Amino acid sequence: MKKLWGGRFTKSAEEWVDEFGASISFDQELVEEDIEGSLAHVEMLSRCGIIEQEEAAQIQKGLKLLKEKSQEEGLPFSVKLEDIHLNLESLLTDEIGPVGGKLHTGRSRNDQVATDMHLYLKKQAAHVIKLIEELQAALLSQAEENVETLMPGYTHLQRAQPISFAHHLMAYFWMLERDKERYSENLKRINVSPLGAGALAGTTFPIDRELTASLLGFDDIYENSMDAVSDRDFILEFLSASSILMMHLSRFSEEIILWSSQEFRFIELDDSFATGSSIMPQKKNPDMAELIRGKTGRVYGNLVGLLTVLKGLPLAYNKDMQEDKEGMFDTVKTVIGSLKIFSGMVGSMTVNSEVMEKATKSDFSNATELADYLSGKGLPFREAHEIVGKLVLDCVNRGCFLSGLPMEVYKEASTLFEEDIYEVLDPRAAVARRNSQGGTGFAQIKKALEKAKGRLKDKAYS
Amino acid sequence: MKKLWGGRFTKSAEEWVDEFGASISFDQELVEEDIEGSLAHVEMLSRCGIIEQEEAAQIQKGLKLLKEKSQEEGLPFSVKLEDIHLNLESLLTDEIGPVGGKLHTGRSRNDQVATDMHLYLKKQAAHVIKLIEELQAALLSQAEENVETLMPGYTHLQRAQPISFAHHLMAYFWMLERDKERYSENLKRINVSPLGAGALAGTTFPIDRELTASLLGFDDIYENSMDAVSDRDFILEFLSASSILMMHLSRFSEEIILWSSQEFRFIELDDSFATGSSIMPQKKNPDMAELIRGKTGRVYGNLVGLLTVLKGLPLAYNKDMQEDKEGMFDTVKTVIGSLKIFSGMVGSMTVNSEVMEKATKSDFSNATELADYLSGKGLPFREAHEIVGKLVLDCVNRGCFLSGLPMEVYKEASTLFEEDIYEVLDPRAAVARRNSQGGTGFAQIKKALEKAKGRLKDKAYS
Amino acid sequence: MKKLWGGRFTKSAEEWVDEFGASISFDQELVEEDIEGSLAHVEMLSRCGIIEQEEAAQIQKGLKLLKEKSQEEGLPFSVKLEDIHLNLESLLTDEIGPVGGKLHTGRSRNDQVATDMHLYLKKQAAHVIKLIEELQAALLSQAEENVETLMPGYTHLQRAQPISFAHHLMAYFWMLERDKERYSENLKRINVSPLGAGALAGTTFPIDRELTASLLGFDDIYENSMDAVSDRDFILEFLSASSILMMHLSRFSEEIILWSSQEFRFIELDDSFATGSSIMPQKKNPDMAELIRGKTGRVYGNLVGLLTVLKGLPLAYNKDMQEDKEGMFDTVKTVIGSLKIFSGMVGSMTVNSEVMEKATKSDFSNATELADYLSGKGLPFREAHEIVGKLVLDCVNRGCFLSGLPMEVYKEASTLFEEDIYEVLDPRAAVARRNSQGGTGFAQIKKALEKAKGRLKDKAYS
Amino acid sequence: MKKLWGGRFTKSAEEWVDEFGASISFDQELVEEDIEGSLAHVEMLSRCGIIEQEEAAQIQKGLKLLKEKSQEEGLPFSVKLEDIHLNLESLLTDEIGPVGGKLHTGRSRNDQVATDMHLYLKKQAAHVIKLIEELQAALLSQAEENVETLMPGYTHLQRAQPISFAHHLMAYFWMLERDKERYSENLKRINVSPLGAGALAGTTFPIDRELTASLLGFDDIYENSMDAVSDRDFILEFLSASSILMMHLSRFSEEIILWSSQEFRFIELDDSFATGSSIMPQKKNPDMAELIRGKTGRVYGNLVGLLTVLKGLPLAYNKDMQEDKEGMFDTVKTVIGSLKIFSGMVGSMTVNSEVMEKATKSDFSNATELADYLSGKGLPFREAHEIVGKLVLDCVNRGCFLSGLPMEVYKEASTLFEEDIYEVLDPRAAVARRNSQGGTGFAQIKKALEKAKGRLKDKAYS
Repeated sequence: MKKLWGGRFTKSAEEWVDEFGASISFDQELVEEDIEGSLAHVEMLSRCGIIEQEEAAQIQKGLKLLKEKSQEEGLPFSVKLEDIHLNLESLLTDEIGPVGGKLHTGRSRNDQVATDMHLYLKKQAAHVIKLIEELQAALLSQAEENVETLMPGYTHLQRAQPISFAHHLMAYFWMLERDKERYSENLKRINVSPLGAGALAGTTFPIDRELTASLLGFDDIYENSMDAVSDRDFILEFLSASSILMMHLSRFSEEIILWSSQEFRFIELDDSFATGSSIMPQKKNPDMAELIRGKTGRVYGNLVGLLTVLKGLPLAYNKDMQEDKEGMFDTVKTVIGSLKIFSGMVGSMTVNSEVMEKATKSDFSNATELADYLSGKGLPFREAHEIVGKLVLDCVNRGCFLSGLPMEVYKEASTLFEEDIYEVLDPRAAVARRNSQGGTGFAQIKKALEKAKGRLKDKAYS
Repeated sequence: MKKLWGGRFTKSAEEWVDEFGASISFDQELVEEDIEGSLAHVEMLSRCGIIEQEEAAQIQKGLKLLKEKSQEEGLPFSVKLEDIHLNLESLLTDEIGPVGGKLHTGRSRNDQVATDMHLYLKKQAAHVIKLIEELQAALLSQAEENVETLMPGYTHLQRAQPISFAHHLMAYFWMLERDKERYSENLKRINVSPLGAGALAGTTFPIDRELTASLLGFDDIYENSMDAVSDRDFILEFLSASSILMMHLSRFSEEIILWSSQEFRFIELDDSFATGSSIMPQKKNPDMAELIRGKTGRVYGNLVGLLTVLKGLPLAYNKDMQEDKEGMFDTVKTVIGSLKIFSGMVGSMTVNSEVMEKATKSDFSNATELADYLSGKGLPFREAHEIVGKLVLDCVNRGCFLSGLPMEVYKEASTLFEEDIYEVLDPRAAVARRNSQGGTGFAQIKKALEKAKGRLKDKAYS
Repeated sequence: MKKLWGGRFTKSAEEWVDEFGASISFDQELVEEDIEGSLAHVEMLSRCGIIEQEEAAQIQKGLKLLKEKSQEEGLPFSVKLEDIHLNLESLLTDEIGPVGGKLHTGRSRNDQVATDMHLYLKKQAAHVIKLIEELQAALLSQAEENVETLMPGYTHLQRAQPISFAHHLMAYFWMLERDKERYSENLKRINVSPLGAGALAGTTFPIDRELTASLLGFDDIYENSMDAVSDRDFILEFLSASSILMMHLSRFSEEIILWSSQEFRFIELDDSFATGSSIMPQKKNPDMAELIRGKTGRVYGNLVGLLTVLKGLPLAYNKDMQEDKEGMFDTVKTVIGSLKIFSGMVGSMTVNSEVMEKATKSDFSNATELADYLSGKGLPFREAHEIVGKLVLDCVNRGCFLSGLPMEVYKEASTLFEEDIYEVLDPRAAVARRNSQGGTGFAQIKKALEKAKGRLKDKAYS
Repeated sequence: MKKLWGGRFTKSAEEWVDEFGASISFDQELVEEDIEGSLAHVEMLSRCGIIEQEEAAQIQKGLKLLKEKSQEEGLPFSVKLEDIHLNLESLLTDEIGPVGGKLHTGRSRNDQVATDMHLYLKKQAAHVIKLIEELQAALLSQAEENVETLMPGYTHLQRAQPISFAHHLMAYFWMLERDKERYSENLKRINVSPLGAGALAGTTFPIDRELTASLLGFDDIYENSMDAVSDRDFILEFLSASSILMMHLSRFSEEIILWSSQEFRFIELDDSFATGSSIMPQKKNPDMAELIRGKTGRVYGNLVGLLTVLKGLPLAYNKDMQEDKEGMFDTVKTVIGSLKIFSGMVGSMTVNSEVMEKATKSDFSNATELADYLSGKGLPFREAHEIVGKLVLDCVNRGCFLSGLPMEVYKEASTLFEEDIYEVLDPRAAVARRNSQGGTGFAQIKKALEKAKGRLKDKAYS
């Protein structure tokens, strides 16, 4: 099979060399976007009088035929033809004859592939946003059922202060809200058309770039043809937004794994999202959470990969940039899968509220209450902190908790202590009292849930 | 020296252990932000009646004194006091006595350090945007002087088509425009106040978070206290935007290095931005461009570092997060330095326009002209491409360029060729003809320069 | 289809959840290693009297049958059965009945998958070493033909001092020699058997781990069962050695791209290792070199990916570790492909020795000669350097090179200059004179080539 | 102040530009190595007759004076003089006059800086190995005291099988053993001298590279001068070995954090290695473990940073390579600090063996015992696994553990069960029975401890 660019060459490469250089094994993922882009391009060529209407009609018919075939039976791609662009052009010419060769007028593979990727990522980023919203909805629903569920709040994985489980879950809601913002901002720069930039310098044909942009649903066109063909920022942004999203999911995964352990037993995962062991019959492993925590690595790796590829490349297109695709495809697949799993996992987990609440009563996480109590009575916070620290130590030596210390011990520590401290030490009261804006106080949480619901209704991409 | 949190402890750490854990050696960079945050916090405590006005006044006076001392002579920080927060609180108490201990009422180091970093990065991101605009202005100015300067446009580092040097430079203008957008979007999420989130759960004191936010110039407050203290997305975004910016600068650096080589000789750097060799007296090295290309590595590394730190951390604050600072400081310093150097380097370089233009005449980068010529006369592009490929090979064998081939050779290759092809082959004419939107045609470039100038005038941060 | 570990579960996962968790789509790459490992395991079980000889014979027959089928027609794997281990066990039981269930006695998937990967990487690392040697041989061969070929040596991409092209090529030979050392050292730790570590704690069956190790060709066994199942250092080392190798190839690629440019024209790539453009008929792009430079990114990314996966994982096995495979497979494929391409590309390229030599005569890269000359006559090097710097500046102003400066100018600059300086300035003489150990002097190069040849003969893995 | 390479330049850079390019702010860390290298170089120059003995003596005296001053009072470095090399040369000339200018004869900054870094890393890598051995000794000591301490072994953070705590600790011993191997192999390639490679091509002076190598304690010299000055593999290897080491420590840190939580309470850290909270008086945070887990990020980042720097750099030296130092210094400091902290933390922690052992009795981690029991009586393992899975489910429904199920339930499940199963279910017996090589059986552990002790005695670097 002869190469489409072979005029100048006297010798052809061996097959394994071709395979190494070819991208068809993975860029066939872009088959629909490539046809879509070509349909718009040929429509423009015709409307601008660059090719005959009749020729355009033939080419469009041929392209639609290829699209149908692709969906129904798949297309016979060849490594010899390198990539999706040359493969499709060759198949088109097979269908409709040499007029197919007119499709590439005023276009280069450099602007064509960039167009394909903008089209692809536009669909995928919108899909990711939708799936984030589904996960937010699942979180909201679990949170609404757990406003009154007490649990220990942790810092340094040490119990710090009692909180509501709803409050904890909603922290993830707001992380996801930022993730959505990032993908939306990314979309602004995805939604720009490079088509018509040619190889790097534009074209001598009287094309209309705004027309193709509009036919393809792009909001804008690239201002500079060299930038248009060599820009991969929009993919880097997607990989970066995805790295941050996966980081959030890895944190949530870590917590799900901890909470599922025999030591915590705060939740039980639904059987659909847990697996067993080939050797230990009793195991119920939080595999999905572990796997998603692990998949954070590949998304970070994909980001590093593309950053490395682009470092130090002179303008404009270089073959290195063919390496932009696989990491992008892999990230799309990983993010979409992880979000779907997470929605199901969060939505179906059982919350062991009694275990959680019991935990809040058997530790020192109410110590801050005492410090705040003293501080509220006018003692500088530092001194209050010091006094309570000593009371905790006293408890440790006696083998009791703060609610178990007798009144005289409190009095001895500070005359500011009164009988009401025992109420103050109750975890539920402690949670309720943390009623500052955005705090875990029940009244605050209810407000926050309303706000979150409102936010979810204004979906940018529904 | 006694630790401020030491009440519960019976034994103190050895000095080298303290040093390992302390952050004061680097977080003293935040001294002004920490004082600024404390001033707002104490003002709010007073206005909300949590502490007496008189106490607030004392504390504020003490804080301002510390600020002055810091600017004039520096403050005596101690590793024993771990971080900037405890150091300042201790110095404050030294100044004004135990009332200083009231400053920390209703606040935790967790929301305090987050506030400091939001304040810090807000200033820095705005500064970076300003420096990007200076570089854009330098580019614009060089571009305006080089609209008519021809140079070979490259793909694969092979000469592809002749272009205007202004067009090449302006590709970077638009990359930087996106960089600016990213930092601006980042700023939206930087500009949110975590203050009042407490350790993780909010506080029992009747604080007013919107008041402190407004005093500190923040646009909004975090909705969820646990998110507020454990969120580092805003730093990751900054590192990611900076990685992309550095990637752009690394590409530009690579070109400056190439253009400064004896092989290209397209530009000469000003002596201020080049250095010599300790052993080879003739050398004039593009050191600054090389160094900036190299510094891309550290910024990528800082991004990877923080992504790694945050992976899999349970909520809320963990000591791991202390590792968020040094990479951020280093990135700020690197990005600011690189942008300043680049503005100077681009603004002062000499363009060897004759060498550039000569290059466009001694290669085959006008071959596309012939293919477009034939294609414009109705030949399918693929066939035109094939014919021209053979003519190029013919030239190579004859040792001439396309303009040197006699008319009969053209006629033999295709009867569509006429005498006007020799004009078509002229690089300047070729550039002029690429007049599609965003192309290198002179008319297009002039439009693009106007548009860019307009964009630069609407400075978001001036 | 029922899960092999399903006894404890009441509900089964949906298919898309299974697909997300399953590894069979990629770990089927390990089919031969898995069978190999099982054959050794069952042999040991029988020899140790844990299962009957007759049972072992049946299982072995079944396994061999599966191996044949796998090679001839492939095996029908199912996502429902998760991974290669459970798939093969199920297929085995289909073949030979319930006795197949005895294969897993005294073994867990945790030690089984570790064994598979050790076996896999052992083959691949040895193969990589062999391909490195082939590339070294290609380099050696080109170097031998180019001992006398002069070229400018560069630092900062500025011409620094003339060198022999052979000397330049041989720098890569020695980089590759270190790469080989790293893979060899990696092999020492790959070549250790985890089999028999069980799930994490060993097994109650009287197995013989040294026997299986020896049957599988491993040099040693892991000392600690928990380490055996949770260690992935050997993969990290492979990814790290591969990152360094790819970094070397990226440097070489960069040079090949530079040398192939119209500005340098030092080499011409064979048509088999270059490609054309869809729009510019004259282009001959060094695509393979660019692609390999780009592929450096994915290998770095794979390293970062696995480092991220393993960070902070508690002992012993966690599902995150399933993410160790795809990056490893991808790296193996990338490294092997890149090495093969490079051997062909280096072996077949044409060296334009005249262009190279001409370059050495039209620049200031002989300036060091003058400084050394003066220094050799007793002038402190710093003063010599200063004098020559000024002579270079003088040349620049006059528009000549150092060999074109008249004698009186030299005399005026320093009375130490004599007529012999014109010989000193000749590039070939300059190269010859750099005869220090490991230098570019022709005599040194010949020695170095002999040494390299000797090294290549002592192949560790031939 | 005039630049040492300034002869060719007409204009000098502004100070902030100088600062950006200068490395003296960090490469002064190499002051001793630079002097050491110069002492050897000048000794060689003299022995080879390149400079006079008298001159050499003067220079050596001057250098030693600088070394003393450096140690006693520090040296006055200037940014204007860029780096440690030019600063020291200038200070030397200040001390001894123009003869100081002879020091740089036959040497370039390119081989000089490479020499400094080889010398530096040689010391540091040996120090790291020593500290690893100290941590191994601390582990060994804790392990010896905890052979009989039972704990649950985990996979997927689910209790899997009971193990000995000593066995768990020793898994880290063997990881560290591999870390040591990697640093030792790294040392082989660190311990090679680049001195005498000149700028890139060797030198015209009759130097003796083997002499300087031997004076500096290097085992070998680089074979190729271009490789010598542009190789940074030895730093990459160090960063890679350090990344793997930190990954190990991050895993151990994660476990220490888990074990210190109220939920696990398996250990208590000594007060010296834990810290308190500014707001919550009861907190005792495992800060050091968290911080080390976090510091894994910066070491990964440093590795990525240097890999990025080197990607695609043409030979030989480029200014980008100045970026090799800070990440290396930071990694050395991080690794050394982390190892020291870990030795102290592991050596001083209190093991709550009762809590651990109690945990092994209140879960299903003895389920494998039953499966092995049945399998040992001839039932195919898969069937045994299935039966035990159902018994576990039965327990869950009844709210008991396996040891609490009555005999008739066992009999019903399989007639192979006999009365001895209750002994089989005892965790201590279960641990003892796992006596396969490298398993957790007490006999095995004792053997393993002996072996480890032997290994530690054969210290390569003591």
